Amino acid sequence: MTTPDAGIPASVSDPVHAAGAILAREAARFAGLGWMRGTSGNLSVVLSRDPLRLAVTASGLDKGELATDDLVVVDATGTPVPEAASTPPRRPSAEAGLHARVVALTGAGAVFHVHTLAAVRAGKRWPAGIELRDLEMLKGIGRSAHDETVTIPVIDNSQDMTELGDRLEAALVPGVPAVVVASHGMYVWGETPIQARHHVEIVEWLLEYRMAED
Amino acid sequence: MTTPDAGIPASVSDPVHAAGAILAREAARFAGLGWMRGTSGNLSVVLSRDPLRLAVTASGLDKGELATDDLVVVDATGTPVPEAASTPPRRPSAEAGLHARVVALTGAGAVFHVHTLAAVRAGKRWPAGIELRDLEMLKGIGRSAHDETVTIPVIDNSQDMTELGDRLEAALVPGVPAVVVASHGMYVWGETPIQARHHVEIVEWLLEYRMAED
Amino acid sequence: MTTPDAGIPASVSDPVHAAGAILAREAARFAGLGWMRGTSGNLSVVLSRDPLRLAVTASGLDKGELATDDLVVVDATGTPVPEAASTPPRRPSAEAGLHARVVALTGAGAVFHVHTLAAVRAGKRWPAGIELRDLEMLKGIGRSAHDETVTIPVIDNSQDMTELGDRLEAALVPGVPAVVVASHGMYVWGETPIQARHHVEIVEWLLEYRMAED
Amino acid sequence: MTTPDAGIPASVSDPVHAAGAILAREAARFAGLGWMRGTSGNLSVVLSRDPLRLAVTASGLDKGELATDDLVVVDATGTPVPEAASTPPRRPSAEAGLHARVVALTGAGAVFHVHTLAAVRAGKRWPAGIELRDLEMLKGIGRSAHDETVTIPVIDNSQDMTELGDRLEAALVPGVPAVVVASHGMYVWGETPIQARHHVEIVEWLLEYRMAED
Repeated sequence: MTTPDAGIPASVSDPVHAAGAILAREAARFAGLGWMRGTSGNLSVVLSRDPLRLAVTASGLDKGELATDDLVVVDATGTPVPEAASTPPRRPSAEAGLHARVVALTGAGAVFHVHTLAAVRAGKRWPAGIELRDLEMLKGIGRSAHDETVTIPVIDNSQDMTELGDRLEAALVPGVPAVVVASHGMYVWGETPIQARHHVEIVEWLLEYRMAED
Repeated sequence: MTTPDAGIPASVSDPVHAAGAILAREAARFAGLGWMRGTSGNLSVVLSRDPLRLAVTASGLDKGELATDDLVVVDATGTPVPEAASTPPRRPSAEAGLHARVVALTGAGAVFHVHTLAAVRAGKRWPAGIELRDLEMLKGIGRSAHDETVTIPVIDNSQDMTELGDRLEAALVPGVPAVVVASHGMYVWGETPIQARHHVEIVEWLLEYRMAED
Repeated sequence: MTTPDAGIPASVSDPVHAAGAILAREAARFAGLGWMRGTSGNLSVVLSRDPLRLAVTASGLDKGELATDDLVVVDATGTPVPEAASTPPRRPSAEAGLHARVVALTGAGAVFHVHTLAAVRAGKRWPAGIELRDLEMLKGIGRSAHDETVTIPVIDNSQDMTELGDRLEAALVPGVPAVVVASHGMYVWGETPIQARHHVEIVEWLLEYRMAED
Repeated sequence: MTTPDAGIPASVSDPVHAAGAILAREAARFAGLGWMRGTSGNLSVVLSRDPLRLAVTASGLDKGELATDDLVVVDATGTPVPEAASTPPRRPSAEAGLHARVVALTGAGAVFHVHTLAAVRAGKRWPAGIELRDLEMLKGIGRSAHDETVTIPVIDNSQDMTELGDRLEAALVPGVPAVVVASHGMYVWGETPIQARHHVEIVEWLLEYRMAED
């Protein structure tokens, strides 16, 4: 008997749908905030670490109206995993491999990529990195509210995901769960989807503040 | 027996109501974003191309509260089509003919006209056209994120729709689905209503960014 | 038998409740837009013109959570009308008399008073009146989009409603349904509640644009 | 029989749950406005004054999604009261003691702490206090709209709650229900939760206006 889950092994099915529900919920939140205009941005959550499997939002869809199955399961290179093929088939974002690389580098459980005006503006103003210090909100990304300069790294944009990933790897600041991609947006992550959400909100607050300050 | 669809041939009835539902949904979205203040702006979707028939939002109504039948069916000149007269009668916007002209010129399936602050501000600052380049968001309107200058054309406002249409035709940039009307707002289109929605969101993002940049 | 309408003549009861529903709906809209922060602002609709009776939002309540009976019926001086006393009793805003005066002067069917940042900022920058011209949005308040300078009058604030009313009367610009009260907010009106709503939205758009322009 | 209220004396149970519902509702409002990004900020309501008992939002949770039991009951020092321990256990914010101190100093019935951009920006620009005058909105916090300079005090941030409380006590301005904590956010209070909400909205309006004015 054909079921909606046909082709997906039972052992994968439930976590995948659960991940799809989380991705849809978080994407709708960010879309409502204006941080995923058009079909921009993409979100991922980790399904397993060995082998690495990520559920990534499908490309080309309105992020405010994702269904639970509007996702693609990819491996550590961002390549769709055949045994989890969706019906109808969905395309992963070209950036899926970058999500997987962030996970491999940081151990994150969720990686959220959004296109906020503040991220692009701050990346343009401070191409060498955005320095923040002495702000209570820094505690929201695990840093100190006093006497520490925290740098959110900024990397140049590229359509070559390997190049972009190399830049991201080289620019990562230990303990800072965010990278701004100049002229593009930002990648932010956390141990869980809810923590990744909070990190996005905090980083956006910090960037808006920093842009208004000068 | 008189029905709510009296006077509308059965073959037209369903697509018209479907178009009305789409127009109401999209208008409510834009109104919620503050892009259709008062009763400003108007949206259209193509019903047929030969002969050209457009469903256009009725004039003078709150765009956040349109009903499925708050539309007018117009022809290629923006004139209401008698056989699809609504009950109660609705007036088309004076700009309906401009929507039809955009469709004829570009092959669009939906044309959305909104009054955003960023469009009017950008049209005033760059009356010869708004230049954008090296932004990932440009991909959202089908352009390159690198090494290409994309110009969103700006035309002078007019109450003469033929004059305004001539200006729009002369100003169109191939592959750019948007024109800013100075002191007025912007026209944005796409192959489908959902693509037109995404193009509006992307163009608005680009204009807000460009205005903040300088 | 005591009913919820006890004390209100049957002939008044229904229109009053209908007015209360309209006031609650419009106030919730404006509160959601951030234009009635705290308990600021007040809205009114005309119940009858001879004698003049206005339903005005009660003072001191959250404008996002008004109930249908959170209103006071006042006469041409802003004094509560005893026969329409509410249970529990509600206080009219001190500004109720100003609403009545706007109605008497302009023939408006609804008067909306909101505290927007743009109104207060514009009133401070242009204390002699806010000039606008060559904007399509001017059509939304019944003016021309071309070749006409439209002035939104600005008057000094006062806690003396007679004094404030005299200033408003002296400052009124025929055909312009709005007055900015410096350091305070704006009064905007229309023939119907829905037109008054649209006029508020349009005037706010115009003021935001004008403030951003310079 | 074990009930959801096990461990909470019947006399406390209902008020605690009622307080939890109020905290959840108010926090969701502020989160929707962007004033409690990430898990930032905390809200409290007074349960009793002798002995002083406060219901404070639990730490580390999304303020837009609090459940009725996502709170901690603390005493005048901000220490959780054992007999009202929650299941599962919740941590109070480190700032709970500061809430209690505001209550003891001012007699407030509710204390709301939010992280708005305007508060942090204004605290940076005017570290000696934010002066406001001749604004109708000042009436919303019980001050005069004319001829009085109202100062919202600004104190330096600290992670030592005793130090922060001492600064707050020293900086309090009689009749002004707000203190800005530089680089951090603001504390605002009222006799009731609804009045505290209105005071937050009014103070935020005043700070946004003041920042835009110069």
